[in-house]
Amino acid sequence: MDIWMEENHTDGYRVNWKISELLWREQTPFQELMIVDMFDFGKALILDGAVQTTEQDEFIYHEMISHVALNAHPDPAQVLIIGGGDGGTLREVLKHPGVVRADMVEIDQRVVETCKRFLPGIASGFGDPRAQLYFEDGARFVKKTQGQYDVVIVDSSDPTGPAVELYGPEFYRDCFGILKDDGIMVAHAESPTFFTAYFKAVWRNMEVFPRRNVYLTTVPTYVSGFWAFAIGSKKHDPSKARDDKHAVDGLKCYTRDVHGASFVLPPFIQKIIDQV
Amino acid sequence: MDIWMEENHTDGYRVNWKISELLWREQTPFQELMIVDMFDFGKALILDGAVQTTEQDEFIYHEMISHVALNAHPDPAQVLIIGGGDGGTLREVLKHPGVVRADMVEIDQRVVETCKRFLPGIASGFGDPRAQLYFEDGARFVKKTQGQYDVVIVDSSDPTGPAVELYGPEFYRDCFGILKDDGIMVAHAESPTFFTAYFKAVWRNMEVFPRRNVYLTTVPTYVSGFWAFAIGSKKHDPSKARDDKHAVDGLKCYTRDVHGASFVLPPFIQKIIDQV
Repeated sequence: MDIWMEENHTDGYRVNWKISELLWREQTPFQELMIVDMFDFGKALILDGAVQTTEQDEFIYHEMISHVALNAHPDPAQVLIIGGGDGGTLREVLKHPGVVRADMVEIDQRVVETCKRFLPGIASGFGDPRAQLYFEDGARFVKKTQGQYDVVIVDSSDPTGPAVELYGPEFYRDCFGILKDDGIMVAHAESPTFFTAYFKAVWRNMEVFPRRNVYLTTVPTYVSGFWAFAIGSKKHDPSKARDDKHAVDGLKCYTRDVHGASFVLPPFIQKIIDQV
Repeated sequence: MDIWMEENHTDGYRVNWKISELLWREQTPFQELMIVDMFDFGKALILDGAVQTTEQDEFIYHEMISHVALNAHPDPAQVLIIGGGDGGTLREVLKHPGVVRADMVEIDQRVVETCKRFLPGIASGFGDPRAQLYFEDGARFVKKTQGQYDVVIVDSSDPTGPAVELYGPEFYRDCFGILKDDGIMVAHAESPTFFTAYFKAVWRNMEVFPRRNVYLTTVPTYVSGFWAFAIGSKKHDPSKARDDKHAVDGLKCYTRDVHGASFVLPPFIQKIIDQV
Protein backbone atom coordinates (compact mmCIF):
# COMPACT_ATOMS: atom_id res chain seq x y z
CA MET A 1 0.00 0.00 0.00
CA ASP A 2 1.34 3.42 -0.91
CA ILE A 3 1.79 6.00 1.82
CA TRP A 4 1.46 9.65 0.84
CA MET A 5 2.22 12.73 2.87
CA GLU A 6 0.37 15.96 2.19
CA GLU A 7 1.93 19.43 2.57
CA ASN A 8 -0.41 22.42 2.51
CA HIS A 9 1.19 25.46 0.91
CA THR A 10 -1.85 27.71 0.57
CA ASP A 11 -5.60 27.25 0.95
CA GLY A 12 -5.73 26.24 -2.69
CA TYR A 13 -2.43 24.47 -3.38
CA ARG A 14 -0.99 21.31 -1.84
CA VAL A 15 1.87 18.98 -2.62
CA ASN A 16 1.77 15.22 -2.00
CA TRP A 17 4.91 13.21 -1.43
CA LYS A 18 5.08 9.43 -1.61
CA ILE A 19 6.88 8.03 1.41
CA SER A 20 8.99 4.89 1.43
CA GLU A 21 9.44 4.93 5.18
CA LEU A 22 8.58 7.00 8.21
CA LEU A 23 11.89 6.96 10.06
CA TRP A 24 11.24 9.20 13.03
CA ARG A 25 8.43 11.19 14.57
CA GLU A 26 8.38 13.07 17.85
CA GLN A 27 6.91 16.11 19.47
CA THR A 28 9.84 18.19 20.71
CA PRO A 29 9.32 21.04 23.19
CA PHE A 30 9.02 23.32 20.14
CA GLN A 31 7.47 21.48 17.21
CA GLU A 32 6.55 18.22 15.55
CA LEU A 33 9.69 16.70 14.05
CA MET A 34 9.62 13.99 11.39
CA ILE A 35 12.23 12.24 9.29
CA VAL A 36 10.88 10.36 6.29
CA ASP A 37 12.44 8.53 3.40
CA MET A 38 10.75 9.84 0.29
CA PHE A 39 10.15 7.89 -2.89
CA ASP A 40 11.67 10.63 -5.11
CA PHE A 41 13.64 13.02 -2.89
CA GLY A 42 15.72 10.92 -0.52
CA LYS A 43 15.46 11.43 3.22
CA ALA A 44 13.73 14.57 4.42
CA LEU A 45 13.34 16.67 7.57
CA ILE A 46 9.81 17.87 8.24
CA LEU A 47 8.88 20.38 10.96
CA ASP A 48 5.24 21.06 11.84
CA GLY A 49 4.14 19.56 8.52
CA ALA A 50 6.47 21.65 6.33
CA VAL A 51 9.24 19.94 4.40
CA GLN A 52 12.45 21.71 5.46
CA THR A 53 15.07 19.94 3.44
CA THR A 54 15.57 16.79 1.34
CA GLU A 55 18.74 14.96 0.41
CA GLN A 56 17.83 15.34 -3.25
CA ASP A 57 18.23 19.11 -3.55
CA GLU A 58 19.26 20.53 -0.17
CA PHE A 59 22.49 21.69 -1.79
CA ILE A 60 20.66 24.36 -3.79
CA TYR A 61 19.20 26.10 -0.76
CA HIS A 62 22.24 25.63 1.48
CA GLU A 63 24.75 26.78 -1.11
CA MET A 64 22.68 29.79 -2.08
CA ILE A 65 21.97 30.95 1.47
CA SER A 66 25.66 30.63 2.41
CA HIS A 67 28.03 31.38 -0.43
CA VAL A 68 26.51 34.60 -1.72
CA ALA A 69 27.19 36.52 1.51
CA LEU A 70 30.49 34.72 2.10
CA ASN A 71 31.71 35.68 -1.37
CA ALA A 72 30.39 39.23 -1.25
CA HIS A 73 32.30 39.89 1.99
CA PRO A 74 36.07 40.37 1.50
CA ASP A 75 37.08 38.48 4.63
CA PRO A 76 34.30 36.48 6.32
CA ALA A 77 36.08 35.21 9.43
CA GLN A 78 33.34 35.35 12.08
CA VAL A 79 30.01 33.92 10.98
CA LEU A 80 26.74 33.54 12.89
CA ILE A 81 23.99 31.17 11.76
CA ILE A 82 20.54 31.57 13.29
CA GLY A 83 18.53 28.36 12.97
CA GLY A 84 19.85 25.89 10.45
CA GLY A 85 19.36 22.89 12.73
CA ASP A 86 19.87 20.38 9.94
CA GLY A 87 23.48 21.55 9.63
CA GLY A 88 23.49 22.17 5.87
CA THR A 89 24.27 25.86 6.15
CA LEU A 90 27.02 25.21 8.69
CA ARG A 91 28.53 22.62 6.33
CA GLU A 92 28.66 25.20 3.53
CA VAL A 93 30.00 28.01 5.73
CA LEU A 94 32.86 25.80 6.93
CA LYS A 95 33.96 25.19 3.33
CA HIS A 96 35.40 28.73 3.32
CA PRO A 97 39.00 28.52 4.50
CA GLY A 98 38.84 32.07 5.83
CA VAL A 99 36.10 31.24 8.33
CA VAL A 100 37.70 31.19 11.78
CA ARG A 101 34.57 30.69 13.82
CA ALA A 102 31.00 29.69 13.00
CA ASP A 103 28.49 30.18 15.80
CA MET A 104 25.17 28.48 15.28
CA VAL A 105 22.09 29.18 17.38
CA GLU A 106 19.32 26.61 17.08
CA ILE A 107 16.36 26.69 19.44
CA ASP A 108 15.59 22.99 19.16
CA GLN A 109 18.40 20.64 20.15
CA ARG A 110 16.32 17.66 19.01
CA VAL A 111 16.51 18.87 15.40
CA VAL A 112 20.31 18.80 15.49
CA GLU A 113 20.47 15.44 17.23
CA THR A 114 17.94 13.83 14.92
CA CYS A 115 19.59 15.21 11.76
CA LYS A 116 23.00 13.98 12.94
CA ARG A 117 21.48 10.51 13.20
CA PHE A 118 19.37 10.36 10.02
CA LEU A 119 20.87 13.00 7.70
CA PRO A 120 24.63 12.72 8.32
CA GLY A 121 25.47 14.04 4.85
CA ILE A 122 23.75 17.31 5.69
CA ALA A 123 24.70 17.46 9.39
CA SER A 124 28.38 16.97 8.66
CA GLY A 125 29.80 20.18 10.13
CA PHE A 126 28.89 19.86 13.78
CA GLY A 127 32.20 18.20 14.75
CA ASP A 128 34.35 20.93 13.20
CA PRO A 129 36.47 22.72 15.83
CA ARG A 130 35.48 26.12 14.33
CA ALA A 131 31.78 25.38 14.97
CA GLN A 132 30.17 26.46 18.24
CA LEU A 133 26.57 25.43 18.93
CA TYR A 134 24.14 27.30 21.15
CA PHE A 135 20.77 25.75 21.85
CA GLU A 136 18.70 28.79 22.60
CA ASP A 137 16.32 31.30 21.11
CA GLY A 138 17.98 33.11 18.19
CA ALA A 139 16.18 36.40 18.84
CA ARG A 140 17.42 36.39 22.44
CA PHE A 141 20.95 35.41 21.42
CA VAL A 142 21.43 38.36 19.07
CA LYS A 143 20.15 40.70 21.79
CA LYS A 144 22.73 39.68 24.39
CA THR A 145 25.78 38.38 22.53
CA GLN A 146 29.04 40.30 22.81
CA GLY A 147 30.17 38.75 19.52
CA GLN A 148 30.93 40.88 16.49
CA TYR A 149 30.33 39.13 13.19
CA ASP A 150 31.25 39.55 9.56
CA VAL A 151 28.28 37.61 8.29
CA VAL A 152 24.94 36.68 9.88
CA ILE A 153 22.84 34.02 8.11
CA VAL A 154 19.21 33.54 9.11
CA ASP A 155 18.28 29.99 8.16
CA SER A 156 15.01 29.75 9.99
CA SER A 157 11.97 27.60 9.47
CA ASP A 158 8.77 29.17 8.14
CA PRO A 159 7.24 32.13 9.99
CA THR A 160 4.97 29.98 12.10
CA GLY A 161 5.86 28.16 15.28
CA PRO A 162 9.16 28.84 17.01
CA ALA A 163 10.66 31.00 14.23
CA VAL A 164 8.00 33.72 14.24
CA GLU A 165 10.16 36.28 16.10
CA LEU A 166 12.84 35.95 13.42
CA TYR A 167 10.50 37.67 10.95
CA GLY A 168 10.15 40.90 12.94
CA PRO A 169 12.04 44.21 12.58
CA GLU A 170 13.54 44.08 16.08
CA PHE A 171 15.46 40.93 15.26
CA TYR A 172 16.90 42.58 12.15
CA ARG A 173 17.97 45.66 14.11
CA ASP A 174 19.69 43.42 16.63
CA CYS A 175 21.48 41.54 13.85
CA PHE A 176 22.61 44.87 12.41
CA GLY A 177 24.00 45.75 15.84
CA ILE A 178 26.21 42.68 16.15
CA LEU A 179 27.67 43.01 12.66
CA LYS A 180 31.02 44.71 12.14
CA ASP A 181 31.22 47.93 10.14
CA ASP A 182 31.31 46.07 6.85
CA GLY A 183 29.10 43.16 7.87
CA ILE A 184 26.48 41.39 5.74
CA MET A 185 23.23 39.73 6.78
CA VAL A 186 21.25 37.28 4.68
CA ALA A 187 17.85 35.73 5.33
CA HIS A 188 15.67 33.47 3.28
CA ALA A 189 12.62 35.39 2.19
CA GLU A 190 10.19 32.65 1.18
CA SER A 191 8.37 32.56 -2.15
CA PRO A 192 7.56 36.01 -3.54
CA THR A 193 4.48 34.63 -5.31
CA PHE A 194 3.03 32.11 -2.86
CA PHE A 195 3.93 33.89 0.39
CA THR A 196 4.09 37.49 -0.71
CA ALA A 197 3.34 38.96 2.73
CA TYR A 198 6.32 37.18 4.32
CA PHE A 199 8.55 38.09 1.40
CA LYS A 200 7.61 41.73 1.82
CA ALA A 201 8.12 41.57 5.59
CA VAL A 202 11.66 40.25 5.24
CA TRP A 203 12.45 42.90 2.64
CA ARG A 204 11.03 45.64 4.85
CA ASN A 205 13.06 44.43 7.83
CA MET A 206 16.25 44.75 5.77
CA GLU A 207 15.74 48.51 5.48
CA VAL A 208 17.95 48.90 8.55
CA PHE A 209 20.91 48.32 6.18
CA PRO A 210 22.24 51.02 3.85
CA ARG A 211 22.32 48.43 1.05
CA ARG A 212 19.76 45.72 0.55
CA ASN A 213 19.01 43.37 -2.32
CA VAL A 214 16.92 40.37 -3.18
CA TYR A 215 18.41 37.42 -4.99
CA LEU A 216 16.63 34.37 -6.36
CA THR A 217 16.91 30.69 -6.91
CA THR A 218 14.38 27.86 -7.14
CA VAL A 219 14.36 24.68 -5.07
CA PRO A 220 12.36 21.64 -6.25
CA THR A 221 11.57 20.64 -2.65
CA TYR A 222 10.03 24.01 -1.86
CA VAL A 223 6.89 25.53 -3.26
CA SER A 224 7.20 26.10 -7.00
CA GLY A 225 8.49 29.25 -8.66
CA PHE A 226 11.18 31.56 -7.39
CA TRP A 227 12.63 31.19 -3.91
CA ALA A 228 14.00 34.45 -2.54
CA PHE A 229 16.74 35.59 -0.21
CA ALA A 230 17.10 39.09 1.17
CA ILE A 231 20.58 40.41 1.83
CA GLY A 232 21.57 43.53 3.74
CA SER A 233 25.02 45.04 3.78
CA LYS A 234 26.71 47.86 5.70
CA LYS A 235 29.31 48.55 3.03
CA HIS A 236 30.01 45.99 0.30
CA ASP A 237 27.85 45.48 -2.77
CA PRO A 238 26.20 42.09 -2.11
CA SER A 239 25.65 41.40 -5.80
CA LYS A 240 29.39 41.36 -6.55
CA ALA A 241 31.33 38.21 -5.76
CA ARG A 242 34.95 38.94 -4.91
CA ASP A 243 37.48 37.42 -7.26
CA ASP A 244 40.12 35.70 -5.23
CA LYS A 245 42.04 32.52 -4.79
CA HIS A 246 40.02 31.51 -1.76
CA ALA A 247 36.86 30.81 -3.73
CA VAL A 248 35.33 27.47 -2.88
CA ASP A 249 35.45 25.08 -5.82
CA GLY A 250 33.31 22.07 -6.57
CA LEU A 251 29.94 23.44 -5.54
CA LYS A 252 26.88 22.06 -7.30
CA CYS A 253 24.74 25.19 -7.56
CA TYR A 254 26.80 28.28 -6.65
CA THR A 255 29.36 29.84 -8.95
CA ARG A 256 30.49 33.45 -9.27
CA ASP A 257 28.37 33.73 -12.42
CA VAL A 258 25.34 32.26 -10.66
CA HIS A 259 25.96 34.80 -7.87
CA GLY A 260 25.62 37.69 -10.28
CA ALA A 261 22.71 36.20 -12.22
CA SER A 262 20.71 35.52 -9.06
CA PHE A 263 20.46 39.28 -8.42
CA VAL A 264 18.80 39.97 -11.77
CA LEU A 265 15.13 40.32 -10.90
CA PRO A 266 12.23 39.94 -13.32
CA PRO A 267 10.09 43.10 -13.32
CA PHE A 268 7.17 41.37 -11.59
CA ILE A 269 9.39 40.57 -8.59
CA GLN A 270 10.91 44.06 -8.60
CA LYS A 271 7.38 45.45 -8.59
CA ILE A 272 6.52 43.56 -5.40
CA ILE A 273 9.60 45.06 -3.76
CA ASP A 274 8.78 48.55 -4.99
CA GLN A 275 5.34 48.29 -3.40
CA VAL A 276 6.74 47.66 0.09
CA MET B 1 -17.72 21.30 -0.27
CA ASP B 2 -14.22 21.89 -1.63
CA ILE B 3 -13.28 20.44 -5.00
CA TRP B 4 -9.64 19.52 -5.55
CA MET B 5 -7.89 18.49 -8.72
CA GLU B 6 -4.85 16.25 -8.59
CA GLU B 7 -1.94 16.48 -11.04
CA ASN B 8 0.56 13.61 -11.06
CA HIS B 9 4.08 14.79 -11.83
CA THR B 10 6.04 11.65 -10.99
CA ASP B 11 5.25 8.36 -9.27
CA GLY B 12 6.12 10.01 -5.97
CA TYR B 13 5.12 13.65 -6.34
CA ARG B 14 1.70 15.18 -6.96
CA VAL B 15 0.20 18.65 -6.82
CA ASN B 16 -3.37 19.36 -5.74
CA TRP B 17 -5.23 22.43 -6.91
CA LYS B 18 -8.42 23.72 -5.35
CA ILE B 19 -11.02 24.46 -7.99
CA SER B 20 -13.65 27.18 -7.76
CA GLU B 21 -15.42 26.03 -10.89
CA LEU B 22 -15.15 23.49 -13.67
CA LEU B 23 -15.91 25.64 -16.69
CA TRP B 24 -15.44 23.24 -19.58
CA ARG B 25 -14.61 19.62 -20.20
CA GLU B 26 -14.57 17.70 -23.46
CA GLN B 27 -12.80 14.92 -25.23
CA THR B 28 -11.43 16.39 -28.45
CA PRO B 29 -10.19 14.12 -31.27
CA PHE B 30 -6.74 14.46 -29.68
CA GLN B 31 -6.99 14.82 -25.92
CA GLU B 32 -9.07 15.60 -22.87
CA LEU B 33 -9.49 19.37 -22.62
CA MET B 34 -10.55 21.14 -19.44
CA ILE B 35 -10.89 24.75 -18.39
CA VAL B 36 -11.16 25.32 -14.65
CA ASP B 37 -11.25 28.37 -12.45
CA MET B 38 -8.68 27.78 -9.74
CA PHE B 39 -8.85 29.08 -6.20
CA ASP B 40 -5.31 30.52 -6.33
CA PHE B 41 -4.20 30.67 -9.97
CA GLY B 42 -7.08 32.13 -11.98
CA LYS B 43 -8.47 30.25 -14.93
CA ALA B 44 -6.42 27.37 -16.30
CA LEU B 45 -6.13 25.18 -19.37
CA ILE B 46 -5.62 21.48 -18.65
CA LEU B 47 -4.83 18.87 -21.31
CA ASP B 48 -4.87 15.17 -20.49
CA GLY B 49 -4.61 15.95 -16.79
CA ALA B 50 -1.59 18.27 -17.07
CA VAL B 51 -1.98 21.96 -16.23
CA GLN B 52 -0.76 23.81 -19.33
CA THR B 53 -1.18 27.41 -18.34
CA THR B 54 -2.87 29.58 -15.70
CA GLU B 55 -3.83 33.22 -15.80
CA GLN B 56 -1.75 33.79 -12.68
CA ASP B 57 1.70 33.22 -14.15
CA GLU B 58 1.33 32.35 -17.86
CA PHE B 59 3.32 35.48 -18.64
CA ILE B 60 6.52 33.93 -17.28
CA TYR B 61 6.45 30.95 -19.61
CA HIS B 62 5.13 32.83 -22.64
CA GLU B 63 7.54 35.75 -22.33
CA MET B 64 10.53 33.49 -21.78
CA ILE B 65 9.76 31.09 -24.64
CA SER B 66 9.22 34.03 -27.04
CA HIS B 67 11.39 37.02 -26.30
CA VAL B 68 14.75 35.30 -25.88
CA ALA B 69 14.87 34.05 -29.48
CA LEU B 70 13.20 37.18 -30.80
CA ASN B 71 15.80 39.39 -29.11
CA ALA B 72 18.76 37.19 -30.00
CA HIS B 73 17.87 37.36 -33.70
CA PRO B 74 18.74 40.71 -35.36
CA ASP B 75 15.61 40.85 -37.51
CA PRO B 76 12.89 38.32 -36.67
CA ALA B 77 10.36 38.98 -39.40
CA GLN B 78 9.02 35.48 -40.17
CA VAL B 79 8.13 33.43 -37.13
CA LEU B 80 6.69 29.93 -36.83
CA ILE B 81 5.02 28.65 -33.68
CA ILE B 82 4.43 24.92 -33.33
CA GLY B 83 1.69 24.20 -30.79
CA GLY B 84 0.85 27.07 -28.50
CA GLY B 85 -2.91 26.57 -28.84
CA ASP B 86 -3.72 28.84 -25.91
CA GLY B 87 -2.34 31.78 -27.89
CA GLY B 88 0.05 33.13 -25.25
CA THR B 89 3.18 32.65 -27.33
CA LEU B 90 1.51 34.21 -30.37
CA ARG B 91 0.48 37.20 -28.25
CA GLU B 92 4.12 37.72 -27.19
CA VAL B 93 5.56 37.21 -30.68
CA LEU B 94 3.21 39.82 -32.10
CA LYS B 95 4.50 42.41 -29.62
CA HIS B 96 7.66 42.69 -31.74
CA PRO B 97 7.10 45.39 -34.33
CA GLY B 98 9.55 43.71 -36.71
CA VAL B 99 7.43 40.56 -36.98
CA VAL B 100 5.80 40.57 -40.40
CA ARG B 101 4.19 37.16 -40.25
CA ALA B 102 3.53 34.67 -37.48
CA ASP B 103 2.43 31.22 -38.60
CA MET B 104 1.03 29.02 -35.88
CA VAL B 105 0.44 25.30 -36.29
CA GLU B 106 -1.81 23.72 -33.66
CA ILE B 107 -3.05 20.18 -34.08
CA ASP B 108 -6.19 20.67 -31.98
CA GLN B 109 -8.56 23.37 -33.17
CA ARG B 110 -10.71 22.85 -30.07
CA VAL B 111 -7.87 24.15 -27.87
CA VAL B 112 -7.77 27.43 -29.77
CA GLU B 113 -11.54 27.83 -29.84
CA THR B 114 -11.95 27.01 -26.16
CA CYS B 115 -9.12 29.33 -25.08
CA LYS B 116 -10.58 32.18 -27.16
CA ARG B 117 -13.81 31.71 -25.22
CA PHE B 118 -12.50 31.21 -21.68
CA LEU B 119 -8.98 32.72 -21.69
CA PRO B 120 -9.32 35.81 -23.90
CA GLY B 121 -6.42 37.56 -22.15
CA ILE B 122 -4.08 34.80 -23.29
CA ALA B 123 -5.71 34.09 -26.65
CA SER B 124 -5.57 37.73 -27.71
CA GLY B 125 -3.43 37.48 -30.83
CA PHE B 126 -5.55 35.31 -33.10
CA GLY B 127 -7.26 38.24 -34.77
CA ASP B 128 -4.00 39.98 -35.73
CA PRO B 129 -3.62 40.26 -39.52
CA ARG B 130 0.00 39.05 -39.23
CA ALA B 131 -1.15 35.78 -37.63
CA GLN B 132 -1.91 32.76 -39.81
CA LEU B 133 -3.32 29.63 -38.16
CA TYR B 134 -2.93 26.10 -39.44
CA PHE B 135 -4.82 23.33 -37.73
CA GLU B 136 -2.65 20.36 -38.49
CA ASP B 137 0.13 18.18 -37.21
CA GLY B 138 3.25 20.27 -36.48
CA ALA B 139 5.67 17.53 -37.44
CA ARG B 140 3.96 17.15 -40.82
CA PHE B 141 3.82 20.92 -41.36
CA VAL B 142 7.57 21.45 -40.98
CA LYS B 143 8.19 18.58 -43.42
CA LYS B 144 6.16 20.05 -46.26
CA THR B 145 6.13 23.83 -45.78
CA GLN B 146 7.82 26.03 -48.36
CA GLY B 147 8.18 28.76 -45.76
CA GLN B 148 11.55 30.04 -44.62
CA TYR B 149 11.61 31.34 -41.09
CA ASP B 150 13.80 33.50 -38.90
CA VAL B 151 12.57 31.97 -35.67
CA VAL B 152 10.79 28.69 -34.89
CA ILE B 153 9.23 28.32 -31.44
CA VAL B 154 8.11 24.89 -30.23
CA ASP B 155 5.44 25.47 -27.62
CA SER B 156 4.14 21.94 -27.33
CA SER B 157 2.37 20.11 -24.58
CA ASP B 158 4.20 17.42 -22.62
CA PRO B 159 5.78 14.52 -24.51
CA THR B 160 2.76 12.29 -24.16
CA GLY B 161 -0.35 12.33 -26.30
CA PRO B 162 -0.43 14.30 -29.56
CA ALA B 163 2.90 16.10 -29.00
CA VAL B 164 5.11 13.01 -28.81
CA GLU B 165 6.57 13.43 -32.32
CA LEU B 166 7.73 16.93 -31.43
CA TYR B 167 10.31 15.40 -29.08
CA GLY B 168 12.13 13.39 -31.74
CA PRO B 169 15.30 14.24 -33.72
CA GLU B 170 13.55 14.18 -37.12
CA PHE B 171 11.33 17.08 -36.15
CA TYR B 172 14.37 19.11 -35.11
CA ARG B 173 16.14 18.37 -38.38
CA ASP B 174 13.04 19.49 -40.27
CA CYS B 175 12.89 22.71 -38.25
CA PHE B 176 16.56 23.32 -39.03
CA GLY B 177 15.71 22.89 -42.70
CA ILE B 178 13.00 25.56 -42.77
CA LEU B 179 15.10 28.15 -40.93
CA LYS B 180 17.00 30.79 -42.87
CA ASP B 181 20.81 30.85 -42.71
CA ASP B 182 20.81 32.79 -39.46
CA GLY B 183 17.65 31.27 -37.99
CA ILE B 184 17.01 30.36 -34.36
CA MET B 185 14.87 27.58 -32.89
CA VAL B 186 13.66 27.38 -29.32
CA ALA B 187 11.80 24.60 -27.54
CA HIS B 188 10.70 24.18 -23.98
CA ALA B 189 12.74 21.42 -22.40
CA GLU B 190 10.71 20.49 -19.34
CA SER B 191 12.15 20.25 -15.83
CA PRO B 192 15.80 19.14 -15.74
CA THR B 193 15.30 17.56 -12.32
CA PHE B 194 11.82 16.02 -12.50
CA PHE B 195 11.81 15.00 -16.18
CA THR B 196 15.51 14.55 -16.85
CA ALA B 197 15.06 12.10 -19.72
CA TYR B 198 12.90 14.56 -21.69
CA PHE B 199 15.24 17.43 -20.90
CA LYS B 200 18.16 15.40 -22.23
CA ALA B 201 16.21 14.38 -25.34
CA VAL B 202 15.42 17.98 -26.25
CA TRP B 203 19.05 18.97 -25.71
CA ARG B 204 20.27 16.06 -27.81
CA ASN B 205 17.87 16.98 -30.63
CA MET B 206 19.34 20.49 -30.72
CA GLU B 207 22.73 19.09 -31.76
CA VAL B 208 21.69 19.69 -35.38
CA PHE B 209 22.51 23.37 -34.75
CA PRO B 210 26.08 24.72 -34.70
CA ARG B 211 25.19 26.64 -31.53
CA ARG B 212 22.94 25.38 -28.79
CA ASN B 213 22.25 26.54 -25.26
CA VAL B 214 19.95 25.91 -22.37
CA TYR B 215 18.34 28.77 -20.50
CA LEU B 216 16.26 28.64 -17.35
CA THR B 217 13.34 30.15 -15.57
CA THR B 218 10.85 28.84 -13.01
CA VAL B 219 7.06 28.88 -13.33
CA PRO B 220 4.88 28.48 -10.22
CA THR B 221 2.21 26.62 -12.19
CA TYR B 222 4.66 24.00 -13.43
CA VAL B 223 6.50 21.42 -11.40
CA SER B 224 8.85 23.03 -8.90
CA GLY B 225 12.48 23.93 -9.51
CA PHE B 226 14.02 25.11 -12.77
CA TRP B 227 12.07 25.06 -16.00
CA ALA B 228 14.32 24.78 -19.05
CA PHE B 229 14.31 25.92 -22.64
CA ALA B 230 16.72 24.67 -25.31
CA ILE B 231 17.73 27.06 -28.06
CA GLY B 232 19.57 26.28 -31.27
CA SER B 233 21.07 28.85 -33.60
CA LYS B 234 22.66 28.74 -37.03
CA LYS B 235 24.73 31.88 -36.52
CA HIS B 236 23.87 34.33 -33.73
CA ASP B 237 24.79 33.83 -30.08
CA PRO B 238 21.44 33.08 -28.42
CA SER B 239 22.61 34.29 -25.02
CA LYS B 240 23.14 37.85 -26.25
CA ALA B 241 20.13 40.11 -26.56
CA ARG B 242 20.55 42.70 -29.29
CA ASP B 243 20.54 46.28 -28.10
CA ASP B 244 18.18 48.26 -30.24
CA LYS B 245 15.32 50.65 -30.20
CA HIS B 246 12.84 47.95 -31.18
CA ALA B 247 13.01 46.20 -27.83
CA VAL B 248 9.59 45.46 -26.39
CA ASP B 249 8.96 47.42 -23.21
CA GLY B 250 6.57 46.72 -20.38
CA LEU B 251 7.09 42.98 -20.08
CA LYS B 252 6.58 41.40 -16.68
CA CYS B 253 9.30 38.78 -16.68
CA TYR B 254 11.67 39.33 -19.63
CA THR B 255 14.30 42.06 -19.75
CA ARG B 256 17.67 42.14 -21.51
CA ASP B 257 19.32 41.49 -18.14
CA VAL B 258 17.02 38.55 -17.43
CA HIS B 259 17.89 37.25 -20.91
CA GLY B 260 21.58 37.10 -20.05
CA ALA B 261 21.07 35.78 -16.53
CA SER B 262 18.82 32.96 -17.72
CA PHE B 263 21.76 31.42 -19.61
CA VAL B 264 23.90 31.13 -16.47
CA LEU B 265 23.58 27.49 -15.50
CA PRO B 266 24.27 26.05 -12.06
CA PRO B 267 26.89 23.29 -12.29
CA PHE B 268 24.37 20.53 -11.50
CA ILE B 269 22.34 21.49 -14.58
CA GLN B 270 25.46 21.83 -16.72
CA LYS B 271 26.47 18.35 -15.56
CA ILE B 272 23.22 16.85 -16.84
CA ILE B 273 23.89 18.45 -20.23
CA ASP B 274 27.48 17.25 -20.27
CA GLN B 275 26.29 13.68 -19.73
CA VAL B 276 24.12 13.67 -22.86
